[in-house]
Amino acid sequence: MTSVVETIAALRAQVQAWRAEGLKVALVPTMGALHDGHVSLMRAALERADRCIVSIFVNPRQFAPTEDLDKYPRQLALDLEKLDHAGVHLAFTPGVDEVYPQGFATAISVGGPSAGLETDFRPAFFDGVATVVGKLFIQAAPDLAVFGEKDYQQLCVVKKLCRDLDLPVEVLGSPTIRDAEGLAMSSRNAYLSAAELDMARQLNKVLRKAATALEDGADEASTMASARQAILAAGFDVVDYVEARESVTLAPWRKDRDGRVLVAARLGKTRLIDNVEVAAR
Amino acid sequence: MTSVVETIAALRAQVQAWRAEGLKVALVPTMGALHDGHVSLMRAALERADRCIVSIFVNPRQFAPTEDLDKYPRQLALDLEKLDHAGVHLAFTPGVDEVYPQGFATAISVGGPSAGLETDFRPAFFDGVATVVGKLFIQAAPDLAVFGEKDYQQLCVVKKLCRDLDLPVEVLGSPTIRDAEGLAMSSRNAYLSAAELDMARQLNKVLRKAATALEDGADEASTMASARQAILAAGFDVVDYVEARESVTLAPWRKDRDGRVLVAARLGKTRLIDNVEVAAR
Repeated sequence: MTSVVETIAALRAQVQAWRAEGLKVALVPTMGALHDGHVSLMRAALERADRCIVSIFVNPRQFAPTEDLDKYPRQLALDLEKLDHAGVHLAFTPGVDEVYPQGFATAISVGGPSAGLETDFRPAFFDGVATVVGKLFIQAAPDLAVFGEKDYQQLCVVKKLCRDLDLPVEVLGSPTIRDAEGLAMSSRNAYLSAAELDMARQLNKVLRKAATALEDGADEASTMASARQAILAAGFDVVDYVEARESVTLAPWRKDRDGRVLVAARLGKTRLIDNVEVAAR
Repeated sequence: MTSVVETIAALRAQVQAWRAEGLKVALVPTMGALHDGHVSLMRAALERADRCIVSIFVNPRQFAPTEDLDKYPRQLALDLEKLDHAGVHLAFTPGVDEVYPQGFATAISVGGPSAGLETDFRPAFFDGVATVVGKLFIQAAPDLAVFGEKDYQQLCVVKKLCRDLDLPVEVLGSPTIRDAEGLAMSSRNAYLSAAELDMARQLNKVLRKAATALEDGADEASTMASARQAILAAGFDVVDYVEARESVTLAPWRKDRDGRVLVAARLGKTRLIDNVEVAAR
């Protein structure tokens, strides 16, 4: 049975009790609306640690005023059932006032991998992510934290956050979970109509084709231009970006280093992101 | 004998060993050039904790390009003698690359009490302080940290940093140590000529007079204007600010709350700061 705590004090008391027993503690930060992708993160955490905490907090600081904070899916009872089923030991479900009390006025800003890509379209996003993840890591003090590779730039930013602030947390990226047609699992998929779902399922295919082309030595600029055209041809309304980057620093792609092709594209009001690996040549 | 460590790993190993013995650990962050003011912080730490760490690190991120980073006094051998004499258990003396490795790209920014005062004249100062103190608190994980009230706005910013980021560190402000004429101890006093020292010694007298006037019901604006004139009359070249503020949040002063009169003024190339208490009426 998954225990539930809503306060930082209760979270800390539980983690300290586990630590006193010599147990290794993992944290999986989430915004709830849990799907199989999240469950795979919990499994990865449980394979490597003795105790697994899942935080569920829809972080207002990573949404711009124009974004979907209010309609972001919230389904706590269903989420807790999933945690229980996955064998998660503790759910941390703080209210907004517990995380950001009256007068809260501090921000953590990570440069480096946050440059470009998502930041060009969501300028305050990674400050919001870094601030809440920094706080969660200080609150829970886990040995290990697991993030999905689906939000690949976020994973790189969180790793950089830990390195730069000396947070003693091992950050593990876990492979993206996809449906049978390769669509990356996302809480935002719930916004899609049946017709849009069919279009969305083309996104990963276009990325894989682009990655294979790069691995085979195709020109980067023309490969990205073709990918952009193919995404629009699949029915997407806008391609925010489709770019190849070096996989650790997110610096410009180099064919002799492992890379990623990353995309953000919009279908109606829904914005989807995905990424695939490009092996070094 | 004070042990000396230069790496975060060695610092953590020592703190973890102490914690395993159930010992309470205090940290006194400094930039070296230690004087009796610093020694009083160490004494305050040693009264409240079993082990005292002093960090000595001239933090480049809290100096603007135009400021005195290069000529800031550095005297490590002398400092270590003082730590030894004071009974400090551990000195943490990292190099710049240990604190800010190649590619470092993260900043912590604290709003609230950082508004105005020093920030109007040193815009990046508190981001530099918050980033290095946040890192030090994560690196050393002390139970307690002691800061001087001489840098009063800094003390308020550090307290806010801990509250906002949930850093489990008790931050203690320790009273300013003054010479026989009331001049606040400061590493920057070393820059002053004998004639400037005489002028500098007027600063605290002007502040005390202003604080007493406010406590006695004098008008705030005219009291501050008189204080500014008196500082210039004492021989200072420029008064950056002299202001009354509420003592915890540094919001505008209210006579029914404990307050502070804070000043920054320049004598030649040397910039001095000081502050005194104003009791609530």
